[in-house]
Amino acid sequence: MTKAQGLKGTRDFYPKEMNELNAIFNIWKAAARRFNYSEFDGPMLEPAELWTLKSGSEIPEQMYSFKDKSNKEIAVRPELTPTLARMVAAKQKELQKPIKWFSIARCWRYEAPQSGRLREFFQLNVDCLGTESMKADAEVIATAVEIMKSFNCTENDFYVRLNNRKLITALILGAGVKKASLKDVSRILDKKDKLSEKDFMLALKDLGLKQDVIDNLIAMLNSEISSIKPDKLDEDGKKGYNELMELIGYLNAYGIFKYCKIDFTIMRGFDYYTSTVFEVFDKSGEFRAIAGGGRYDDLVKDFGGEKCPGVGYGMGDVVLSLFLKKLNKFPESKQEVDYYIAPVNEDVMKQAIDIAGKLRKNADVEIDITGKNLKKQFDYANSINAKKIVIVGEKDLKENKVTIRDMKTGKEEKVNLNSL
Amino acid sequence: MTKAQGLKGTRDFYPKEMNELNAIFNIWKAAARRFNYSEFDGPMLEPAELWTLKSGSEIPEQMYSFKDKSNKEIAVRPELTPTLARMVAAKQKELQKPIKWFSIARCWRYEAPQSGRLREFFQLNVDCLGTESMKADAEVIATAVEIMKSFNCTENDFYVRLNNRKLITALILGAGVKKASLKDVSRILDKKDKLSEKDFMLALKDLGLKQDVIDNLIAMLNSEISSIKPDKLDEDGKKGYNELMELIGYLNAYGIFKYCKIDFTIMRGFDYYTSTVFEVFDKSGEFRAIAGGGRYDDLVKDFGGEKCPGVGYGMGDVVLSLFLKKLNKFPESKQEVDYYIAPVNEDVMKQAIDIAGKLRKNADVEIDITGKNLKKQFDYANSINAKKIVIVGEKDLKENKVTIRDMKTGKEEKVNLNSL
Repeated sequence: MTKAQGLKGTRDFYPKEMNELNAIFNIWKAAARRFNYSEFDGPMLEPAELWTLKSGSEIPEQMYSFKDKSNKEIAVRPELTPTLARMVAAKQKELQKPIKWFSIARCWRYEAPQSGRLREFFQLNVDCLGTESMKADAEVIATAVEIMKSFNCTENDFYVRLNNRKLITALILGAGVKKASLKDVSRILDKKDKLSEKDFMLALKDLGLKQDVIDNLIAMLNSEISSIKPDKLDEDGKKGYNELMELIGYLNAYGIFKYCKIDFTIMRGFDYYTSTVFEVFDKSGEFRAIAGGGRYDDLVKDFGGEKCPGVGYGMGDVVLSLFLKKLNKFPESKQEVDYYIAPVNEDVMKQAIDIAGKLRKNADVEIDITGKNLKKQFDYANSINAKKIVIVGEKDLKENKVTIRDMKTGKEEKVNLNSL
Repeated sequence: MTKAQGLKGTRDFYPKEMNELNAIFNIWKAAARRFNYSEFDGPMLEPAELWTLKSGSEIPEQMYSFKDKSNKEIAVRPELTPTLARMVAAKQKELQKPIKWFSIARCWRYEAPQSGRLREFFQLNVDCLGTESMKADAEVIATAVEIMKSFNCTENDFYVRLNNRKLITALILGAGVKKASLKDVSRILDKKDKLSEKDFMLALKDLGLKQDVIDNLIAMLNSEISSIKPDKLDEDGKKGYNELMELIGYLNAYGIFKYCKIDFTIMRGFDYYTSTVFEVFDKSGEFRAIAGGGRYDDLVKDFGGEKCPGVGYGMGDVVLSLFLKKLNKFPESKQEVDYYIAPVNEDVMKQAIDIAGKLRKNADVEIDITGKNLKKQFDYANSINAKKIVIVGEKDLKENKVTIRDMKTGKEEKVNLNSL
């Protein structure tokens, strides 16, 4: 047969690529643990309704879904938040608040593969549930900034765009947009960065907005938060304004507001966000969002639980890796081994195996299993980054010894077997 | 709505369960690294043909498979070995031999959920490709024994059953079974442990075997390897016999033959095994196999590569966990946090956040975000296993100090902020 191939938009993680992936996972985990978030996970397959219910229209269209052998509609998870809400709803009474959880979730979306977008990807999720306080929003944003700083990224490399759904809704309505057009207008504002100014205007016109409403919208988008007069907002808008101001206060306390920028065009696609929304972007503007999230105060209720406010974000591995590689900030991920055991021939093999076993009590050890000659074994030991080679030869063994070569210094010494 | 539920046969990993899972993963990884196996992974979804081609009939029946939006037949992987063979075939020329890889693969099978069998599970895979030497077989078996020993299991708790496909085939044919019945007979021998003696005999009779052939088979199954006369075997049988004897020699060199038992009933379900087959079992006989594997010298060729011999095994998390819990040997997995920051009220919150950030440079730190009173914060800090509580109060702050309580000793001391 011809060589079997993997599916389009998927990756094979050979040891090199797996080490790179683990280097990212390790930084994700360490940052989440720094803030005492606990790891969790749900199943890879879930009832499809988890995403058809509350995720908006885009996600269900991109879902890998199918009927299983019992005719149940099943989805390969496209993202983790509905699973999180389901799990919280299922054990709501037992779970201590705040619920501070993270997960590295493997997800699938049927999209056209392109730079920064694959069909299979990994997504860090950091979520804090059980409080409406903006302290939680500030904390989850702080974990995202901590991650970027752990990758040695500075304020010259990335920034966090912040918005508030309640506030922006009030501002859009205040510009003269009718309630019925709210979703459509939000969708276009969200795409502003990807459209030329002309196309952006045209898209708004196509919705039937009058020129004065469009002018109001554009003035609003270009305005600073300081120019907003909260008295002129409706109740929800006032609430959103206060939330955003409170959040800014806490971000300052964390010393990370310098990484943030209020941006009224940030909407996020999911329908379930109710308040804070934010995205992490590279400053060059070359890539899609590195991370994105927000507050979803009604989601647990939507999945059959009591109301349980929450806030969180997802950070995918694909855009992040492209970004880090471009900046030359992708973390080191060299794999080493403490000892390579080189039997000089088959006659000493069983003694060599015994020596390997002794060293393995405290170290990582590889032994030749392919019958390579000594020269080739040295080359191989070098290629796997062995720190030391233990040469097992008949003459040495008669004196109960082996020769150990330090690969860094090149120095060799004879060592008694009893002292290994 | 009623509470959303996950699918039958799946697990939700809340932090407690996730810690338990990670405790197993950590031991798996450490043992594989001890022998310098490198981690790899493939996609969760693959072309279904990877398993319809060479895995036998059971696996394709249990597969979650479906057509994607481009009408391609896709499977959620039921096991990892065909992915491994595909990946090796794809980069065969670049890959240095031996290929020593491990993976912790999430897999799915549509089976009736029962004790020790779920629809979603994790499976450690340890594989060594690129050599026909029985040193490789001995090494992968040694990693499995190393894992069991890492869980503090002894030879009283588990054992490894060994067989060789070439040898057993010769022995079955030698007992008088026709080639055409070989697969069916193998299948029944494989089930011997699960059947009563009567049912076992009946099953063989149902295949149309004569009584003398059945008697021969039973005598063969009860015979010792030492009673086999290799001269009387066909060429393949002789080869299998020699492989098995060589393997025993290396297992002795590893000091682990004491954990092993030759067992002519061990067959393994997959069609792709060509030589060594083995399974790890609990000694009580209560559980299904804890691990199982074997040599598959033709599999890479089957996926379009050059011939590349290999040997490996899978060890699932479900049976292993049941087994370890029954033995009270499930590894500890307590999660702790270095500091819990307790602001006495909202007024000191921003200073408390700043203090948390300072400590976070070298430690894992949680800070109250829910506005609990001090008594409740102490209870909470206790419940999350905080090692120290940092009490941030107005009076202390005026002196540039905080009070730090050691949760183990109960001792409190005032510490200057500059020395944190």
